[in-house]
Amino acid sequence: MGVTRTDGVLQSAPKKDSGRAHRDARPEGTCIQVGRVEIGGPGFVVMAGPCAVEDAEQTERTAAAVAAAGAHVLRGGVFKPRTSPYSFQGLGEPGLHVLTEAGKRHGLPLISEVMDASQIPLMEESTDILQVGARNMQNYTLLRALGKVRKPVLLKRGLAATIEEWLLAAEYLLEGGNEQVMLCERGIRTFETAMRNTLDLAAVAYVKQRSHLPVIVDPSHATGDPRLVLPMSLAAAAAGADGLLVEVHPWPERALCDGRQALTPEGFQDLMRRLPAVLAAMDRHLSQPERPAQLLGVR
Amino acid sequence: MGVTRTDGVLQSAPKKDSGRAHRDARPEGTCIQVGRVEIGGPGFVVMAGPCAVEDAEQTERTAAAVAAAGAHVLRGGVFKPRTSPYSFQGLGEPGLHVLTEAGKRHGLPLISEVMDASQIPLMEESTDILQVGARNMQNYTLLRALGKVRKPVLLKRGLAATIEEWLLAAEYLLEGGNEQVMLCERGIRTFETAMRNTLDLAAVAYVKQRSHLPVIVDPSHATGDPRLVLPMSLAAAAAGADGLLVEVHPWPERALCDGRQALTPEGFQDLMRRLPAVLAAMDRHLSQPERPAQLLGVR
Amino acid sequence: MGVTRTDGVLQSAPKKDSGRAHRDARPEGTCIQVGRVEIGGPGFVVMAGPCAVEDAEQTERTAAAVAAAGAHVLRGGVFKPRTSPYSFQGLGEPGLHVLTEAGKRHGLPLISEVMDASQIPLMEESTDILQVGARNMQNYTLLRALGKVRKPVLLKRGLAATIEEWLLAAEYLLEGGNEQVMLCERGIRTFETAMRNTLDLAAVAYVKQRSHLPVIVDPSHATGDPRLVLPMSLAAAAAGADGLLVEVHPWPERALCDGRQALTPEGFQDLMRRLPAVLAAMDRHLSQPERPAQLLGVR
Amino acid sequence: MGVTRTDGVLQSAPKKDSGRAHRDARPEGTCIQVGRVEIGGPGFVVMAGPCAVEDAEQTERTAAAVAAAGAHVLRGGVFKPRTSPYSFQGLGEPGLHVLTEAGKRHGLPLISEVMDASQIPLMEESTDILQVGARNMQNYTLLRALGKVRKPVLLKRGLAATIEEWLLAAEYLLEGGNEQVMLCERGIRTFETAMRNTLDLAAVAYVKQRSHLPVIVDPSHATGDPRLVLPMSLAAAAAGADGLLVEVHPWPERALCDGRQALTPEGFQDLMRRLPAVLAAMDRHLSQPERPAQLLGVR
Repeated sequence: MGVTRTDGVLQSAPKKDSGRAHRDARPEGTCIQVGRVEIGGPGFVVMAGPCAVEDAEQTERTAAAVAAAGAHVLRGGVFKPRTSPYSFQGLGEPGLHVLTEAGKRHGLPLISEVMDASQIPLMEESTDILQVGARNMQNYTLLRALGKVRKPVLLKRGLAATIEEWLLAAEYLLEGGNEQVMLCERGIRTFETAMRNTLDLAAVAYVKQRSHLPVIVDPSHATGDPRLVLPMSLAAAAAGADGLLVEVHPWPERALCDGRQALTPEGFQDLMRRLPAVLAAMDRHLSQPERPAQLLGVR
Repeated sequence: MGVTRTDGVLQSAPKKDSGRAHRDARPEGTCIQVGRVEIGGPGFVVMAGPCAVEDAEQTERTAAAVAAAGAHVLRGGVFKPRTSPYSFQGLGEPGLHVLTEAGKRHGLPLISEVMDASQIPLMEESTDILQVGARNMQNYTLLRALGKVRKPVLLKRGLAATIEEWLLAAEYLLEGGNEQVMLCERGIRTFETAMRNTLDLAAVAYVKQRSHLPVIVDPSHATGDPRLVLPMSLAAAAAGADGLLVEVHPWPERALCDGRQALTPEGFQDLMRRLPAVLAAMDRHLSQPERPAQLLGVR
Repeated sequence: MGVTRTDGVLQSAPKKDSGRAHRDARPEGTCIQVGRVEIGGPGFVVMAGPCAVEDAEQTERTAAAVAAAGAHVLRGGVFKPRTSPYSFQGLGEPGLHVLTEAGKRHGLPLISEVMDASQIPLMEESTDILQVGARNMQNYTLLRALGKVRKPVLLKRGLAATIEEWLLAAEYLLEGGNEQVMLCERGIRTFETAMRNTLDLAAVAYVKQRSHLPVIVDPSHATGDPRLVLPMSLAAAAAGADGLLVEVHPWPERALCDGRQALTPEGFQDLMRRLPAVLAAMDRHLSQPERPAQLLGVR
Repeated sequence: MGVTRTDGVLQSAPKKDSGRAHRDARPEGTCIQVGRVEIGGPGFVVMAGPCAVEDAEQTERTAAAVAAAGAHVLRGGVFKPRTSPYSFQGLGEPGLHVLTEAGKRHGLPLISEVMDASQIPLMEESTDILQVGARNMQNYTLLRALGKVRKPVLLKRGLAATIEEWLLAAEYLLEGGNEQVMLCERGIRTFETAMRNTLDLAAVAYVKQRSHLPVIVDPSHATGDPRLVLPMSLAAAAAGADGLLVEVHPWPERALCDGRQALTPEGFQDLMRRLPAVLAAMDRHLSQPERPAQLLGVR
C-alpha cells in the first residue's frame, strides 16, 4: 500500500465523494454472482437461516425449511461475536462442517460471519459470501484482508455508523481490490428501546442513489421482534433493497443466540408468500435460481 | 380533572399497558371520518400541500395540483413553530383564510397545525383535522384542551419521544374525551446527519399492533430530501401505515419554510401513480372519496 | 411582531451567529439579581428543593433543610408536566401557596415551573424565577409570553435539543425584551440507559464560551440517581457552571414524583460541604447571600 | 476455551452482575503499576502526546514539552485506525522506534494503540500500556489475545457502547487472565454536532462505583475542541476519574491526524497548573513519579 510519507496520504486517493463506492464509479450498479443467484440485479434475494449453527438437527431442519420456502442463500453463524465472554461463542470449525453439509444437501450457497483475518482461509474455502458483522465494520485489519479475497463480502453497517463511515468502510474493501461488496442495513442504535435497534430504511434508499453497491436488509437484528420482521421485510422491498438476511429457527424459544427474534419456518413461508406482490409493485421479482433437478426432487 | 389528593393519581387511571390507546381497548381499530374520507380503514389516505401557506397563488397552485393527483386532504401551516425567532413564522389568521378558500375550491378537507390552546377556536372552526407538531407532543396544556375538541387530531411523534411516550401523549387526548386521534411518525433524531431525521418505520408496524389508532407517515420531515420521499412513502405503505402527510410546493426552491424537502407537483403525481400497486400488495387501496360532480368538472 | 411580507423574515433579525444570546452581545457576561443573590457572577448559586410540592410538611422540612445547608433558592414544582395523564400532576395553585409560605419562612427566593402562558400571571406574582421545562423548550407561545415578563427565566435544554436550538430558544426570550435569561443543562437523551439521561457538561463549557448567559446544571434529572448527584455537581462546578438545581426530599422513597433521584437532606448537606473546595480551585465561591438576621436566628 | 456443549455457556461464567470487573470482586480497587507510576491509586495520572507519531522532530518536541509540564506517560499512535482508507494510516513500526526513543530520552513510559492481535508482540515489547481503540472495543479476537498479555491494557469505550457492554468487553480481558485493565471514557455518539462526541462524565462516576477498575478520561477525542479540553479535564478530575489521556501537538494546525483537537504545549502547561487545585478538593493529587536525577537535569 503506497503511503506517501511526505503528506501521509495515499497517492491513489480518489477525490472527495467520488470514491470507488460512489454511484458515478459504476452508474449501472454492481451485480454479484453467487452460484446461480445474482445480487444487485432485478431479482430480489433472500438469505435465511439460524443466527448460530447449534447442531446438525437444528441446521438441517432450518435449511430444509428455508430451501422449501424459496430462500436463495443459507445463513448461519459459526464464529459468534458476543457481548459477554460467558455467552455461547459459536461452534467454530465443527459448526462450519455442519453448515456446509446442510447447504450442499439443499443446493444453497452459504453466508457466514468472519470475525478475524485468521478465519479467512477457512471461511473463504467453505462459504460463498463472507459476512462482516456490525461490530467489525471498522476493523480495518479485517477489511484490508478481505480486500484481497476473491469472494463476495457482505458489510453490515456498524450500530452507530453514519452512512458516510459505512461507505468508507466499503471503500477499504474496494480499494484492496475486492469489487464484490454488498452492504447490509441492520438497524442503528438510538434512544428508542421498544425495538432492539432502529431500522433505517431511508438509508437504504439513500445509499442506492449514492452508491452502486447492492443493499441487503436484516430485519431480524434490526427489530429483535419476529412480529416486526414481516412488515419490515415488505417495507425494505418497497424502499428499494436488493435482498434480505433473515433469521429462521425451528424452535426459536430454545435458540442459543438471539432466538427471540427468529422467524419460525411457518413465519418464513408466510414472508416468502407475501414478498412477490410488493416486489411486483416495484417492477422486481424474487430471484429464481435454477435449482438442479435432483435437488428440486428432494423437497 | 379529578386528582385524588390522597395518592395524587387520577381515580380513573386504567391499568398499566391497558390504556385507552391500547389495541385491547378497541380490537377492531379506530376509523376516523373526515368529510367523505375514512382514516384507519382499508382505504389509504394522502394529505398533501405546502409546509407553510405563503400567499394565495402558491396555495391555489398547490391545492389544484394535489387535488388533481388524487390527494384526499389539503395540508398547509399558518402558525409555524420555528427554531429561530427570526425565521418566517407563518401568515397566521390571514393565511387560514387563504387555505380555507383553496380547500373549498378543490373540495379538499383541511389539516393545519395548532400551536397553542388559544388558537383552537379559530382552527376548530376552519379546519377538519388539527395537527399537533413534534415540538408540542408533550405540551400537556395543549393536549388537554384538544381532548375537549370534537374534531380529529393528528399527533406527531416528538423528535426524541419513545413510542411509549407518544402513546401516553395520545392518552391525554383520549382521556379528555376526544376519540378521533391519529398518530404521525415523522422521523426521530439520531446521530445520522445524511438525512434530516431517521424515519422509524418499525415504529409504525409496532404501534399498529399495540394500539388501535390510525398511523400516518410524514416522509418529508422525516428525510428532508425530496429524492427520498417516494421510496419512503412506498415503504410506509408496505409497513402498514394508514396514510401519508406529504409536502408539495410549486416552486420548492423559493419556499419560505423547509422547501428543500417538498415534492414538486410532478413528483407528487409520480408518487400517486406508484402507490396503488404497493397498496394492492397489502390488500389495501387508495381511499376513493366521492367528489361532488361539479368539483370533478373543475379539474 | 413585525413580519416583513416581502421576504418573510423579521426586519430586526441579527446576523447569523451574532444573535442577542451570543457572547459578543455582552462580552462581560450577564448577571441576574434574584433577591440578594447574583446569578452569573463569581458566586456560585444552589437552588434546591423537592421535584414537586406535595404537602405543607414535606415542603417545610425540605425548605428548612436546604436553607440550613446554605441553599440560595428554593425550588418546587406545583404544575408538573407528566408523561402519563394518570400520574400526579402537581397541586396547582394551592401548592404555590404552600411553597411561598415555606420560602418566606426561610428567607429563600423561589423558582417554579410555568407550563403555559395562562399560568404566567400567577407565577410571576408569587415566584422569583420562572422555569421553562425541557419539554417546553420549543413551546414558542410560552417563550414569547415570557419575553414580555420582567422576572428571570431559567430555560432548560430540551432532551434532544442541540446547543444551537437551545440558544435560539433563548433568543425568543431575549428578542421579546426579557434579558434575565439563564440556561439549564439537565441531560440529553442518548442510547445509554444506565442513567436517566446523559449529562452534557461539555455543553456547559461550550455555552459559557459562546454566550453571555449564566448556565445552571441540574444533576438530579440528568442522572436520575442520587449516588451520581454529588460527583456530577462537583464536575459541573469544575466545568464552569454558574450554579445547580438539585432535588432534595425528606423521604425520597415516598415522593410522588421522581423521588428516586432526590438527595436526602443529609446528602445535600454533604454536597454543600464539598462544593467550596472545588469552587476555590476555579477561583469562585459559594454565593453568600446576606440573610436577614432574624432568619438566621430561626435556623 | 471450555465451552460446555450442553448449554453453550462457559462453565466458569460468574453470576450475572457479579463479573470479574464488578466492584465486589475487588472492593479496594485495582491499582496498576506502570514504571514508577501507579494508576488507580490516590495519585492522578496524565498521559499526553500526539494523536499520531509523524516524525522524529514532532515527537521529540512533544515529548520534551509534556515531560517538562509533568506528564506521567507519553502517548502516540503508530498504527492508526482511520475512517477513510485514503487518510494517513500511521507510520507503523518505524514510528514505534521514533516513539520509544523519545520516551527513553524523557523518562516517560509509553502508551500506544494496538489494532490487531498480530501487532501485539511488537507493541508488548516496546510499549508500557496497550491501548484498545473505541472502534475495537468489541473486537473479541483482539480482546482475547490481550487477555493473555502481561502488560496493562487501556480499553476505550466504543462510541455507541453502553456501560454494560463496556464492562463486558473488560470482562473478556479479565477472563483471559489479564488483571491490569483500565477503562477510558472518550465521548459517545449522540445527536449533538457542536462537539465531536458527547463526554459522558456521569459514566465515569457510575463505573467507579460499580467496578474496581481505574477510569481514564480522554477529553481530546470527546470534544474535538482544544478550548474544551481544559474545562473537561478539570470536570473529569472532579467526577472521580483516575487520570487523563490528552492530545498535545507542537503545531496543531499542521497535524496529520485530529490536529484540530490537540492542545499546544502552552495549553498543556496551563492544564497541568490548574489540575492540582481541583484534585486537592477531591483529596487527591497529581501522581509524583520519582524521575531519575539525570533526567530531571535534562529539562
